[in-house]
Amino acid sequence: MKHYKLLLFLTLGFLSQVCIGQNQQATNEAEFKPSPVNQPGSEYPMVNEKGQVRTQISAPEATKVQLDIGGVKYDMAKNKEGVWTGESAPQDEGFHYYQLNIDGASVPDPGSLFFFGANRWGSGIEVPAHDQEFFALKNVPHGKVEQILFSSKSTDTTRRAFVYTPPKYDLEPQKRYPVLYLQHGYGENETSWPNQGRANLIIDNLLAEGETKPFIIVMTYGMTNEIEFGGLRDFDIQPFQTVLVDELIPYIDAHYRTKADKENRAMAGLSMGAFETKLVTLNKPEVFSHYALFSGGIYEPEELQDRTKPELIFISTGSKERPDAVKSAVSELQKEGFNAVSYVSEETAHEFHTWRRSLYQLAPLLFRAQK
Amino acid sequence: MKHYKLLLFLTLGFLSQVCIGQNQQATNEAEFKPSPVNQPGSEYPMVNEKGQVRTQISAPEATKVQLDIGGVKYDMAKNKEGVWTGESAPQDEGFHYYQLNIDGASVPDPGSLFFFGANRWGSGIEVPAHDQEFFALKNVPHGKVEQILFSSKSTDTTRRAFVYTPPKYDLEPQKRYPVLYLQHGYGENETSWPNQGRANLIIDNLLAEGETKPFIIVMTYGMTNEIEFGGLRDFDIQPFQTVLVDELIPYIDAHYRTKADKENRAMAGLSMGAFETKLVTLNKPEVFSHYALFSGGIYEPEELQDRTKPELIFISTGSKERPDAVKSAVSELQKEGFNAVSYVSEETAHEFHTWRRSLYQLAPLLFRAQK
Repeated sequence: MKHYKLLLFLTLGFLSQVCIGQNQQATNEAEFKPSPVNQPGSEYPMVNEKGQVRTQISAPEATKVQLDIGGVKYDMAKNKEGVWTGESAPQDEGFHYYQLNIDGASVPDPGSLFFFGANRWGSGIEVPAHDQEFFALKNVPHGKVEQILFSSKSTDTTRRAFVYTPPKYDLEPQKRYPVLYLQHGYGENETSWPNQGRANLIIDNLLAEGETKPFIIVMTYGMTNEIEFGGLRDFDIQPFQTVLVDELIPYIDAHYRTKADKENRAMAGLSMGAFETKLVTLNKPEVFSHYALFSGGIYEPEELQDRTKPELIFISTGSKERPDAVKSAVSELQKEGFNAVSYVSEETAHEFHTWRRSLYQLAPLLFRAQK
Repeated sequence: MKHYKLLLFLTLGFLSQVCIGQNQQATNEAEFKPSPVNQPGSEYPMVNEKGQVRTQISAPEATKVQLDIGGVKYDMAKNKEGVWTGESAPQDEGFHYYQLNIDGASVPDPGSLFFFGANRWGSGIEVPAHDQEFFALKNVPHGKVEQILFSSKSTDTTRRAFVYTPPKYDLEPQKRYPVLYLQHGYGENETSWPNQGRANLIIDNLLAEGETKPFIIVMTYGMTNEIEFGGLRDFDIQPFQTVLVDELIPYIDAHYRTKADKENRAMAGLSMGAFETKLVTLNKPEVFSHYALFSGGIYEPEELQDRTKPELIFISTGSKERPDAVKSAVSELQKEGFNAVSYVSEETAHEFHTWRRSLYQLAPLLFRAQK
């Protein structure tokens, strides 16, 4: 178990928000609890309802230890036993990558579980979110997350993907399913959506509430990390597009009970994965009918000329990113007759909580025309 | 991709062994290469054909940095730029857990991938093995490794297991398969066999060579880590036996196309997982017909009275463990008419290379009586 503990921070979260306005003193003493994504049995790192992160590590001979989170390094303090403790300023709700710095060495915090982001496996922490029930591990029927290894001639490699199949997939062996191809961002990989993204739990929960149709999700590495960050102009979509469209999709259609047509195929991505989604869906109008961009670009109506209108265009962003640009773009698409939907994740930035919420909002809109 | 690179150390490994005897000087300069289980793009840690491990980390302000592997701490040395480098003595072939120590802080090496062992996710390294082709990622048909989440009433939790299905499982939807339940050791968990154990790749390779019948493998957490290491006398098998036999096996038989009878069910485990295997197979003769213990105990003939003889008893160990005890026990079993097989992994100890090889030896012996 990756220790997806069933936390009930929901009520405490609301109380804490009330307190912040009324009594800053009381809130400063907000109780710290172990992060739900700690290593088994590890008390630290901790988080409180204000979103502060507290880390602790034994380093008796060290002269300087820092907590590095959200682009800020916080000095930690040593006690008589050589144990260092430190706290961050409040962080946004949801998941964050972080690390420790011990006498100049940047290392993972051995107390946390590890997640792939920033081009490496490193520490992650879960700051209590008022809406965290939607991605919690609950006692509902669970789908599977399957690791497949598929042969790619174009790259001369064996490549990995994760495939989510919904809870009843094995119990209804005649039924066929639509497919969502879901991409991570720069510095991440195919593990990011099933691990910190909790894609499987989000869909399990929606299905348990009858809020979405069942579908398969396929998550593979988008080959985004071979360029320098920000070098989008130099990014060539062709190698990944070939792997995705000419190799992975045929493999999935051969090995899973898919509805193998455009109407039953969606593509979505976050950040650089959204950039990829836009390029691939524009290049391959015959392959996908549902397009979704999370925190990464928009579609202009003129980019979508000369094709049947897609079934759905979904564009999302965090409220701390560029919500006005997204709303405006979707409004333009709607004026031109597109079925376009915008979503703004409140009080979040370019981080995974925005993208978990985006998937949660997107799923019920997918494949609605299908029986 | 977990960067299972296709290494060809095989030839170099043999050459190196020849050199060791003839020219110690030359061998001391054995070339270091990045470990195949490094983080993407990470040059360090490195290994050479002698089995030495070389680590490197930037820690400009540190006063003491050590490499901690195989129960020994090796001092590393700092250069002018504040980068520390150090080397271990030669290690046995195969996989090893290790960590770094920076001014008294024990931390994972940020250069390596992370594996669950010693009760935590930490660094691992792959020392070139002369026989490593048997667990290499090759361009052969690959089965899937599926994460399932199943409800456990007896523990009031949702629990995780990984399920390996062979390459043709999805392509032959009428076929049913036998099942091996495969347990990790103390301090490890359900990820240990599919990650550092490479169980899926070992079976993929055997199947590609026609050396084994296809079967499903189920790997779940054996609840071994809640006791103090060595406290076997206090270990109560009942909670895990209930999860395994009364909850997980029915879930697997409901969700997978299994041959759901004793003749088609095997149990194997390593170290404390072998101890569990012995207890469960002795308690539940009606559930399993193939028993396998890797580096953890033996069966005495008198323990197997009052039951139909199992189809197979397989007992293995590393040559650096207790090979004579294993051979002697198997000889006793054979005298009593049991189909018992021993296997000794040459030049390995109580580590994962012994257990990878044990699985490789066991698989062809499983379910032979079945069509």
